[in-house]
Amino acid sequence: MTQHVKTVAAIGVGVIGGGWIARFLLNGLDVAVYDPAPGAEAAVRQMIANAERAYRKLTLAPLPEPGRLRFATSIAEAVADADYIQESVPERLDLKHRVLAEIAAAARPGTPIGSSTSGFKPSELQQGLPTATSVFVAHPFNPVYLLPLVEIVASPANDRAVIDRAKAFLGTLGMKPLELRKEIEAHIADRLLEAVWRESLWLVKDDIATTEEIDDAIRFGFGLRWAQMGLFETYRIAGGAAGMRHFLAQFGPALQWPWTKLTDVPELDAALVDRIASQSDAQSGAYSIGDLERIRDDNLVAILQSLKANRWGAGLIVQEHEARLYDKAHAGVATAAIEPGQPLQLHTSRVREDWADYNGHMTESRYLQVFGDATDAFLRFIGLDAAYLATGASVYTVETHLRHLSEAKVGVGLKIATRLLGHDAKRIRIAHEMYSSEDDTLLATAEHMLLHVDTTLARASPLGPGLTTRLDAIAESQARMSLPDWAGSAIRALDRPQSILA
Amino acid sequence: MTQHVKTVAAIGVGVIGGGWIARFLLNGLDVAVYDPAPGAEAAVRQMIANAERAYRKLTLAPLPEPGRLRFATSIAEAVADADYIQESVPERLDLKHRVLAEIAAAARPGTPIGSSTSGFKPSELQQGLPTATSVFVAHPFNPVYLLPLVEIVASPANDRAVIDRAKAFLGTLGMKPLELRKEIEAHIADRLLEAVWRESLWLVKDDIATTEEIDDAIRFGFGLRWAQMGLFETYRIAGGAAGMRHFLAQFGPALQWPWTKLTDVPELDAALVDRIASQSDAQSGAYSIGDLERIRDDNLVAILQSLKANRWGAGLIVQEHEARLYDKAHAGVATAAIEPGQPLQLHTSRVREDWADYNGHMTESRYLQVFGDATDAFLRFIGLDAAYLATGASVYTVETHLRHLSEAKVGVGLKIATRLLGHDAKRIRIAHEMYSSEDDTLLATAEHMLLHVDTTLARASPLGPGLTTRLDAIAESQARMSLPDWAGSAIRALDRPQSILA
Repeated sequence: MTQHVKTVAAIGVGVIGGGWIARFLLNGLDVAVYDPAPGAEAAVRQMIANAERAYRKLTLAPLPEPGRLRFATSIAEAVADADYIQESVPERLDLKHRVLAEIAAAARPGTPIGSSTSGFKPSELQQGLPTATSVFVAHPFNPVYLLPLVEIVASPANDRAVIDRAKAFLGTLGMKPLELRKEIEAHIADRLLEAVWRESLWLVKDDIATTEEIDDAIRFGFGLRWAQMGLFETYRIAGGAAGMRHFLAQFGPALQWPWTKLTDVPELDAALVDRIASQSDAQSGAYSIGDLERIRDDNLVAILQSLKANRWGAGLIVQEHEARLYDKAHAGVATAAIEPGQPLQLHTSRVREDWADYNGHMTESRYLQVFGDATDAFLRFIGLDAAYLATGASVYTVETHLRHLSEAKVGVGLKIATRLLGHDAKRIRIAHEMYSSEDDTLLATAEHMLLHVDTTLARASPLGPGLTTRLDAIAESQARMSLPDWAGSAIRALDRPQSILA
Repeated sequence: MTQHVKTVAAIGVGVIGGGWIARFLLNGLDVAVYDPAPGAEAAVRQMIANAERAYRKLTLAPLPEPGRLRFATSIAEAVADADYIQESVPERLDLKHRVLAEIAAAARPGTPIGSSTSGFKPSELQQGLPTATSVFVAHPFNPVYLLPLVEIVASPANDRAVIDRAKAFLGTLGMKPLELRKEIEAHIADRLLEAVWRESLWLVKDDIATTEEIDDAIRFGFGLRWAQMGLFETYRIAGGAAGMRHFLAQFGPALQWPWTKLTDVPELDAALVDRIASQSDAQSGAYSIGDLERIRDDNLVAILQSLKANRWGAGLIVQEHEARLYDKAHAGVATAAIEPGQPLQLHTSRVREDWADYNGHMTESRYLQVFGDATDAFLRFIGLDAAYLATGASVYTVETHLRHLSEAKVGVGLKIATRLLGHDAKRIRIAHEMYSSEDDTLLATAEHMLLHVDTTLARASPLGPGLTTRLDAIAESQARMSLPDWAGSAIRALDRPQSILA
């Protein structure tokens, strides 16, 4: 069923609605949008551009073609043929009731209707709706296109099948649906955030710390821990081998101490608002909101990628999402046709910002990384898949010759043309050419000698028959192509008196 | 003055004390430890081993030789000749008073005495001390050897100069000293943590979520944000162009809603303790505490490295610390002697875990990264420094020939031997040999052709006279060395019928 979600409706385009729309589109879904606010369309297009910039850096896996964006003139028109509907209008219950009633009246029966509400319970949202079985809370976190968490809250009135379908669908977007066991105002995360927010207001009001100092207390300390483990798992470690009971025995008493001021709610009077606003200006005023968004997104992308490398937490969600994307791509590679007299086109990439040297060009070792990925694609193409590796055989690079001909700037698309220069019982000689996909400039060339090895004996071994057959076919198809003039070339000596050749 | 801190005393070796000791030692400081607990020494050595494993992965910059660890038989003996003293005994005021009195009596006058207390105010710690001017709060966060934050809290009784010296010293350890404007119980971070902790206890008690679900609500959502920006800067973005005032106007009212239960303190009765402990077992029981520590540390290292690449937040602290370490290393390079008839030894490295392929060997592109770093060291050696780059000239690699001879496993130390094969007006030809620093196995070789370029015109230009002079000297010193047999070699064709050479 989740496979069938092709069209999504998004009602309301604030920061959250816009983030939802971007995540939908970037995952190849068509999105119908409704928001009566003037300038809503321009705002959405800007948000999508910002989101895409970051989202495309999140993974090198090939993303699907973005879906189509359509602006509807009414809620009914937007939701009529939607397979999933997300409501993100302002946090006023009367408004939500009006909008949800219109949605429910026009939507196909059984279509999941998620609300982005950060505070209301589903039973509150469902009040007065003719049919409430499909309306539930799907509360995401800003930026919606990068943060995986989406809190799912249902009421007893909900149809279980609809909720399960919605969760499965959101999972395919690279999100982490977290369903609450019972409905409660503000769900889980916002309760924790509100607690920190209240305490922080007191710290500012009492002049213990400025907004910047409070932020520093978070981002140089426990904030780093919470990006990868939460409160309880972190404290479990602190408890040591004695475990959680020991920790509770140690830490519990502190709860009785008169530390926090949370028993009162600080009044947000003009003086406190002024103080916070001016401290925030002093802290962040040097950056525009656009700057801060880009900085935040680049940091989140980098953090998610680092956790992905460690196969942990939010990084695992990205990895699973990536695996789905790669599966499609590899399926393409495996079935790619061999065009007689043509080099193979098996790999494309893009120069990521974190690949740049101080000149803003792709740094040296990344060229080899891209060529290495192209070699992997070639090896998959000739049948070196996970099953083959599992037999204890693999192919290693034993020799590489690189030529850097032109610089690749950040953001440039790369496409690799691959040729088989020869192969024998144990060796494969290939050549890659790296082109800019913008103007077809030849950026670099690579020549590799690959050796088939028995990984258990760690010594050279004969290629499997399946691989050889495939290689023969490629060699045959490229037999009439002339050898690249640079193939087999070496780095030449410099004839200069003080050269050691003198 | 901070330059003169050579010896540190650490009193108390729990998780926090042990973390302090590791950070001190790994930054080259001698540490005198006192803790009467049986098995304290064994526990400390284990903690140091764990910490060193992670800390050495935090940066590729050369760390100083670890300091000497000494176990004293009394507080007096431990602190007598210390330049800085850190107290980390259990959180009981009477005990802290006893220990701090002993420390103050035996320490050299004016020696900073930091307390790791997470709850007490400095004025409380200072009660009854003959001299209180040097006793202050220096509250770190677990793991102390990785997290930069250390909260500094002084009382009116403190000597300002001592506090400033302590902050400067802690900064040289790669920490971020954050001083509170006023003393307050639990300082800043623990107040925020306590607020979250209290609310979380309610969520578990009321069965809204399990410990794992609460942790997920953190680490898949706002925890990722807080690793790089705090509460206020994040909300400033949410406020959009309208800024913080707009956000407060929007969000403020929610504070009046009856969301959190923070007005009460949940009683940690047996039932709640049982529930938390068993939920925590279900969540994390599959991992030992040691496993969790390694996972946490590897994640923190990866996150810190990703933020370093983005030059932001905690990553900036690491970068600054690294810069200090590199400065020393480069100073070494700049003054390294040219040994006649010997290759240059300008670069060493280590195979990091995140460099490994699925076989546990250094992945292909990392070889070129290490060779590239060695080339950078060589270029610094001949005078291509920041000042030279600032003139709009640089040196690019135009051609590379790599040979992979043996595999480098994770953790293996690498040393590079570099030879100048020749140079002319605009070009430099060099050869690197990569050896395992363990058994001197030759792992790989690299031959590079480098081209001197005018970066503004983006075209080849003559080497500066300073560089040429230095190159002549190196060429002279290596003139009698025979050319490596692999230098100038090319990848050979494979003579096989289906080779395209047929």
